[in-house]
Amino acid sequence: MNTSNHVRIVEVGPRDGLQNEKAMLAAAVKIELINRLSDTGLATIEATSFVSPKWVPQLADAAEVFTAIRKAPGVVYPVLVPNLQGYERAREVGATEVAVFTAASEAFNRKNINASIDESIDRFVPVMERARADGVAVRGYVSTVLGCPYQGEVPVDDVVRVARRLHELGCHEISLGDTIGVGTPAKARAMLRAVASEVPMAALAVHFHDTYGQALANILACLEEGVRVVDSAVSGTGGCPYAKGATGNVASEDVVYMLHGMGMSTGVDLDRLVATGAWLATQLGKETASRVTRARTAAA
Amino acid sequence: MNTSNHVRIVEVGPRDGLQNEKAMLAAAVKIELINRLSDTGLATIEATSFVSPKWVPQLADAAEVFTAIRKAPGVVYPVLVPNLQGYERAREVGATEVAVFTAASEAFNRKNINASIDESIDRFVPVMERARADGVAVRGYVSTVLGCPYQGEVPVDDVVRVARRLHELGCHEISLGDTIGVGTPAKARAMLRAVASEVPMAALAVHFHDTYGQALANILACLEEGVRVVDSAVSGTGGCPYAKGATGNVASEDVVYMLHGMGMSTGVDLDRLVATGAWLATQLGKETASRVTRARTAAA
Repeated sequence: MNTSNHVRIVEVGPRDGLQNEKAMLAAAVKIELINRLSDTGLATIEATSFVSPKWVPQLADAAEVFTAIRKAPGVVYPVLVPNLQGYERAREVGATEVAVFTAASEAFNRKNINASIDESIDRFVPVMERARADGVAVRGYVSTVLGCPYQGEVPVDDVVRVARRLHELGCHEISLGDTIGVGTPAKARAMLRAVASEVPMAALAVHFHDTYGQALANILACLEEGVRVVDSAVSGTGGCPYAKGATGNVASEDVVYMLHGMGMSTGVDLDRLVATGAWLATQLGKETASRVTRARTAAA
Repeated sequence: MNTSNHVRIVEVGPRDGLQNEKAMLAAAVKIELINRLSDTGLATIEATSFVSPKWVPQLADAAEVFTAIRKAPGVVYPVLVPNLQGYERAREVGATEVAVFTAASEAFNRKNINASIDESIDRFVPVMERARADGVAVRGYVSTVLGCPYQGEVPVDDVVRVARRLHELGCHEISLGDTIGVGTPAKARAMLRAVASEVPMAALAVHFHDTYGQALANILACLEEGVRVVDSAVSGTGGCPYAKGATGNVASEDVVYMLHGMGMSTGVDLDRLVATGAWLATQLGKETASRVTRARTAAA
């Protein structure tokens, strides 16, 4: 059991958050967002995604954004890459850490990339090989770990198998994502425990969406189970493509507030994070989904 | 340790929720709300408050509402009473369970009712005596158990002392309320554990506001500690008088979703609860604060 008091927050707002927002932000705004986040004490900020602009027009400016952001000392800026082509585009602008993604649901993979889970993982192999040769760290995302919009239940064994395979392929960290936010604490805990029986807990992260309001409770259960890396997005951006109008990623502010309140350290300056979240909400022209930012702003 | 699988939800929306909403609902709407809630399977629905209309104009129609609601078999409809006068008004219309309230914070009591904690409790004594003589059950609310808008930190010893005193006076259930929603899971757990060392866990309830998004995580921690009664408000009504625009009571829908997802029973039909919450939000002219209702409505 991990009894460390430190939790590393992986800020996924600039990528996972913004790619699911209706509003298209200018590159300059994204650059300012990431630069502001770099000043909060966050150690990992997922900056963008080198997927095809056809799929994700919100992040068509990936190269421009990644090139322009200030790379703060001690902060890592991973970027999502779907394939070798994306990997090469990311490397051209100097990315030193990348992320690959698959799902634990067969139906989700079939529907989204017309491939089985195994085929989707096979497509990573060239990326993993090149990354190893280049000394580039690779993070692996497993989505739909607690439910799938197409097949419903996702067997825990499938989650374990996919996570183990990504770890064997060389991913230094596996992020377990409840993409549609349907999970509840006991299921989250059981899923994490099963994965941790095959992959070291130190190589695992949890990634919750707040679609059903369960994210913080799920994170708490997973912290109790020993995980110490948590994905979140400042201001709770993101929405859910499978439930329009629903809430997105768990808000980083609310996660940090909980962790600090529990006596855990994150290295993050909550005041700066709240200010950044409030600023981002203004840029997106919508109310922040962070309840901490809402309460702080309301009280001010 | 309580290992029961059943959790009783105390629905406080019609009272704690509505008294802090800006919108004034017509008595007929409140009556329909409570009648709808009675059809969801909830066992306890706090119906209204017999406080002075000068203090809480939103609930000036307490007698009218309480008289008109359908009293479903097996459902209890407690009402809040601040003093003997309120108790008598409640009894005139047939209330069989009442609730009294105080705070664990000296500063909060001083500011709100110009009395010390001990003096505020002394004021209950005539109510408790009459209730005992009448065979009326009394619920006790302790507010500001994890923080106070005036004094900040609230010593756990004060919470324990107040809860024990209410129990000694004859309250069959003590609801421990984080009025301003600042608490986090480790503090909530420690507070509950301390109170449970002096008052039986079976006589305790927890009452969280979602001002900082912590409510479900706090409930989870308290369930792990053994509590089996949870206060919540359909659609998350209420707001926070100390942080305008902030989120209110934890939404009953989100609590029930979590509990059912964890394999616990509540007796509540979630679909009916969601439908009632969506209807109430329309009546209030605001978006529901329940993420479950938002996701269900968005997906529909």
